[in-house]
Amino acid sequence: MSLIVVGTMAFDAIETPFGKTDKIVGGSATYVAYSASNFVKEVKQVSIVGFDFPQEELNDLKERGVDLAGVEVVKDKKSFFWSGRYHLDMNTRDTLVTDLNVLADFNPVLPDEYKNAEFLMLGNLDPEIQLSVINQMAKRPKLVVMDTMNFWMDIKMPALEEVLKKVDVLLVNDSEARQLSGQYSLVKAAKTILSMGPKYLVVKKGEHGALLFHEDKVFFAPALPLEEVFDPTGAGDTFAGGFIGHLAKTKDVSFGNMKTAIIVGSALASFCVEKFGATRLKEITEDDLRNRIDMFIQLVNFDIRLK
Amino acid sequence: MSLIVVGTMAFDAIETPFGKTDKIVGGSATYVAYSASNFVKEVKQVSIVGFDFPQEELNDLKERGVDLAGVEVVKDKKSFFWSGRYHLDMNTRDTLVTDLNVLADFNPVLPDEYKNAEFLMLGNLDPEIQLSVINQMAKRPKLVVMDTMNFWMDIKMPALEEVLKKVDVLLVNDSEARQLSGQYSLVKAAKTILSMGPKYLVVKKGEHGALLFHEDKVFFAPALPLEEVFDPTGAGDTFAGGFIGHLAKTKDVSFGNMKTAIIVGSALASFCVEKFGATRLKEITEDDLRNRIDMFIQLVNFDIRLK
Repeated sequence: MSLIVVGTMAFDAIETPFGKTDKIVGGSATYVAYSASNFVKEVKQVSIVGFDFPQEELNDLKERGVDLAGVEVVKDKKSFFWSGRYHLDMNTRDTLVTDLNVLADFNPVLPDEYKNAEFLMLGNLDPEIQLSVINQMAKRPKLVVMDTMNFWMDIKMPALEEVLKKVDVLLVNDSEARQLSGQYSLVKAAKTILSMGPKYLVVKKGEHGALLFHEDKVFFAPALPLEEVFDPTGAGDTFAGGFIGHLAKTKDVSFGNMKTAIIVGSALASFCVEKFGATRLKEITEDDLRNRIDMFIQLVNFDIRLK
Repeated sequence: MSLIVVGTMAFDAIETPFGKTDKIVGGSATYVAYSASNFVKEVKQVSIVGFDFPQEELNDLKERGVDLAGVEVVKDKKSFFWSGRYHLDMNTRDTLVTDLNVLADFNPVLPDEYKNAEFLMLGNLDPEIQLSVINQMAKRPKLVVMDTMNFWMDIKMPALEEVLKKVDVLLVNDSEARQLSGQYSLVKAAKTILSMGPKYLVVKKGEHGALLFHEDKVFFAPALPLEEVFDPTGAGDTFAGGFIGHLAKTKDVSFGNMKTAIIVGSALASFCVEKFGATRLKEITEDDLRNRIDMFIQLVNFDIRLK
């Protein structure tokens, strides 16, 4: 159950209709690690941070069984910083500040002991970096999952197309799926994207749930209807961590088990949004998670009685 | 299995990104009747039309077992006419024309043989008209379902509140639920609305599915992911017709059976959007419907395998 997670470890400053934070710890790989470490020890982390990244956070991650051998610490630069403001619908946001800092130099070198990992999670990054990580693996992992975003479709489409040919699962949101495929209908978008390389496509729709496409099959998982969505930051990465964490734990990459992985990811994401940052992810127990998964089962469970 | 359907029978002219129609037959009660008549004979229709409403359409409805005794035909006025244009997302639209015509005088008088019906579907209409229909019933129906819209919340809120006290199920879309409750979170909106009278709330989210709230329970049904949504007009009414049609046929108004009713309504709505107007609803067979319901079961069906 060896899992590599590649992505950012960063600071975020977040404004929502319900409050705002100063700089807090964020970054895609941070959320993926907190989520996946519910299932996998060790999570082999690959990232880059500056001198200002809190040692306490690194200790927290280590305690959860996250291997930080692949996390480069740059002594004379600051960590990546992102600031954004959410709209009332909590599904859309404006970026206020993006300070790349250390991320401008990110050129990950995999430790040797990472190179035989069976599961590889490529967080949203420059596709050239994603490709470089894939190429450093000693053997083709059992499953490669990648996230990306519209930014790379705008400026690095050829490199993105190269990575897509080498991954098993692509995770994107609905607008990214539409942009990548040039199709408005998500069913048509999925057909196009599945012809570009990935064998599985997960379309994240935020509060409207997620769709899993594979061959001519489709599975839908709702988001849990919540009283409060306090901060959606990291929900997609938390979803990704639960998704690949469950698959890596069970070592079963069948369509049926991917459905379970989507429910597990959705359950974890439903915790993430309840507090700012990754706070809530550090609190939850195995029982909390099991109870929340039961809520998902109740939410969609029905018996058809037509007569 | 006696069912009364109250609502408009009208003409629509529709523009979508994929095409446009001249005047075609529409109206909430038309869609509800085509949908509910898959389950209930006779559907007792209550509406008003002008001299221009096609006799052929009335004949089609009669053949499907729709009782038109409650449909008033006004010899010297035109039928209600609505024209609208859909945006690319097909979930939002602009109204271009609303000609009330006969609808300005709609003051339904229930035929005596309607007054003991067990199921009552109140389509979106002036809440004073909805109230007048309820008050004409000889006895309290087993189940009263109502639809409404933001327009009535803007101009007739006190009358709307009166009707809400007398119904069992309210069907609205997500923005209407938010406006009616003053709550953005749909979970909070549902709590507020369930305290206003209805025992069940169905929140229709178009391509994002539907939620059923009852006491502290919630059920979610997705919309079927479709390659093409050709024309969403009438999808909500078709959903309503399938929902109450299934309940009226089975005479079972338990929460469990309401879940089935929502799947049945969603399946019928997924046909409605495939062609302009009610065209597709006239074509489908019992097998078509059963196959589509099976697609819904496949879409959300999963086994949790956590170990």
